[in-house]
Amino acid sequence: MSSYKQIIYSKAPNPAIDPSLNGGTFSIKTVAKPSNVPSDKVLVRTHYLSLDPAMRQWLTAKRSYIAPVEIGAVMRGQSIAQIIAVGQDLAAKFKTGDWVVAYTGWQEYAVLGAKEVEQFVLPPGGRPTDAMSVLGMTGLTAYFGMTEVGHPKAGETVVVSGAAGATGMVAGQIAKIKGAKRVVGLAGSREKCEFLVRELGFDVAINYKDADWKKQLKDVTPEYIDVFFDNTGGEILDACLARAARDSRFVICGAISQYNSAKPQGPTSFMTVISQRVTMKGFIVFDYAKKYPTALQELASWLSQGKLKRKEHIVPGGIEGAPQALVDLYKGVNTGKMMVEVAPVDEAAKAKL
Amino acid sequence: MSSYKQIIYSKAPNPAIDPSLNGGTFSIKTVAKPSNVPSDKVLVRTHYLSLDPAMRQWLTAKRSYIAPVEIGAVMRGQSIAQIIAVGQDLAAKFKTGDWVVAYTGWQEYAVLGAKEVEQFVLPPGGRPTDAMSVLGMTGLTAYFGMTEVGHPKAGETVVVSGAAGATGMVAGQIAKIKGAKRVVGLAGSREKCEFLVRELGFDVAINYKDADWKKQLKDVTPEYIDVFFDNTGGEILDACLARAARDSRFVICGAISQYNSAKPQGPTSFMTVISQRVTMKGFIVFDYAKKYPTALQELASWLSQGKLKRKEHIVPGGIEGAPQALVDLYKGVNTGKMMVEVAPVDEAAKAKL
Repeated sequence: MSSYKQIIYSKAPNPAIDPSLNGGTFSIKTVAKPSNVPSDKVLVRTHYLSLDPAMRQWLTAKRSYIAPVEIGAVMRGQSIAQIIAVGQDLAAKFKTGDWVVAYTGWQEYAVLGAKEVEQFVLPPGGRPTDAMSVLGMTGLTAYFGMTEVGHPKAGETVVVSGAAGATGMVAGQIAKIKGAKRVVGLAGSREKCEFLVRELGFDVAINYKDADWKKQLKDVTPEYIDVFFDNTGGEILDACLARAARDSRFVICGAISQYNSAKPQGPTSFMTVISQRVTMKGFIVFDYAKKYPTALQELASWLSQGKLKRKEHIVPGGIEGAPQALVDLYKGVNTGKMMVEVAPVDEAAKAKL
Repeated sequence: MSSYKQIIYSKAPNPAIDPSLNGGTFSIKTVAKPSNVPSDKVLVRTHYLSLDPAMRQWLTAKRSYIAPVEIGAVMRGQSIAQIIAVGQDLAAKFKTGDWVVAYTGWQEYAVLGAKEVEQFVLPPGGRPTDAMSVLGMTGLTAYFGMTEVGHPKAGETVVVSGAAGATGMVAGQIAKIKGAKRVVGLAGSREKCEFLVRELGFDVAINYKDADWKKQLKDVTPEYIDVFFDNTGGEILDACLARAARDSRFVICGAISQYNSAKPQGPTSFMTVISQRVTMKGFIVFDYAKKYPTALQELASWLSQGKLKRKEHIVPGGIEGAPQALVDLYKGVNTGKMMVEVAPVDEAAKAKL
């Protein structure tokens, strides 16, 4: 193959992402594959693209924790990739065939510096995609959000929104591991709710599309909510604020319900913040980078012991499917980490992982 | 005098308080003055009623930090009062003529137990009304909100809303005492703003009724806002969130702009909470009761040294004026602590204080 495909950010969403590759938010571009790799770079092949709720924010030119993606640039994103060529200066550090997590962006191949790719070691039973989910950014986000911001204590009631998403499902399981008395998941379908309770050990799961979901939430939080791990914002955040326990911690991880809104909405039942002395704290996983090794060790150990379960939603069909997959992520079609399979991993490679 | 007046909470506001004593939120009642005091009580005469933004919340039957006032009851409120008769069991503890702070409610006289009245000692230069303002609940609220929730560090930028109110003016001065580089007050008139800068030492004050106040706020916070002490909520909270510095602390003390609203509004620019890792924390001064003595000592010492200044807005004319004064409080007519003078303090009594 002498050329490869890139997905370019072409037009600002207004406010929703248009997944059409013909005049929509993104466009496709075919570029020549480099014939040789600079001495201080590696060439990687993208296998799995990570789809993340934060991506919508990256397309908005506002002050944020990260610079926005510029129009005309390859769409930003993390991937599971394999090194297929190594520049001569990096031969001691990398070899062809190494698996890495990297911010390749949405392209089939990428030329990257040593600092832009990260090798990973999988624990017994680990899968390569774990390095981008339960043992990657979403797992770490759940870990630090729950342990450092929410810090549930034994006997407490913990509620997680977006509970069937990659971060939410790990956050809920960690709360249970940490001794929470009751972990309640909020998700958008009956199937997701059943999965959370049957497979992941949530005590209760509520489908927020049920007409009476607020009443259900009230019924299952008789001692109110001590920790709320929020991935959705909007009406769900409001309903949980109305059930906030005194001195409760509201972990503001994301607000997926608002990202595509022209007029994002914050909580309205805000008086409760005062009357119940609520702490609402936003956080970004990058701030905990120094603690990643310890966290990953603990997550891997829980995974090996079967205390922590994971699930991925992998969209096959190649990189062209990424824009639609991103739109589907905001619709909540996924249970677990949403990824696009850019190139399947062959069985020989899998065996080596 | 054998009878006295009470102001009764008669009709729930919908949503605004109607100050008319003839069919409005409150009504007036004349009751007989007790001829003798039970052995375990004192009889006090109310001199100054405290008017507090929280009062509107007390009239709403919602889960809160304190039970609502019941329809038909004397309106709840704190006062500066003087003991005029002491039951025999309390003779060792109180004497006629003692000045106290007490939750008398809105009435000219009250029979109270020993735990319901609190004697106070004024520092050099202190005035009796101080015990209900700078050396009372509003001063303590400012103290704990700023030092325990906001904890400004040297060099930081601090913004206070409702800065010309009883709590806000103390909060801003404490930030300055604690070494904040720049203290910005938000208030509702040019006169208030001039007072904050000229008399209280705020670095800047902005009239939020100016058409370009948001631009002014942006211009005076080039390094963003590290601590926001919020008494108003609503649009002002939003504008300050848009200027939140990374790891900033938003002290949620009150939301006076929303108390009389049928549909209270929380912050809308909520994404900043995540991107800038903002901590928003509500608090109630009562939670710090064990630390009151230390705090009062420090406040009194700042007051004596002239580092801390106070101001009251005293409405003369007796207890009948309380409902209108409460409405005026929400309109922001006051600079400093809003009180109703129920009975003037005579010069002889003043001299003894």
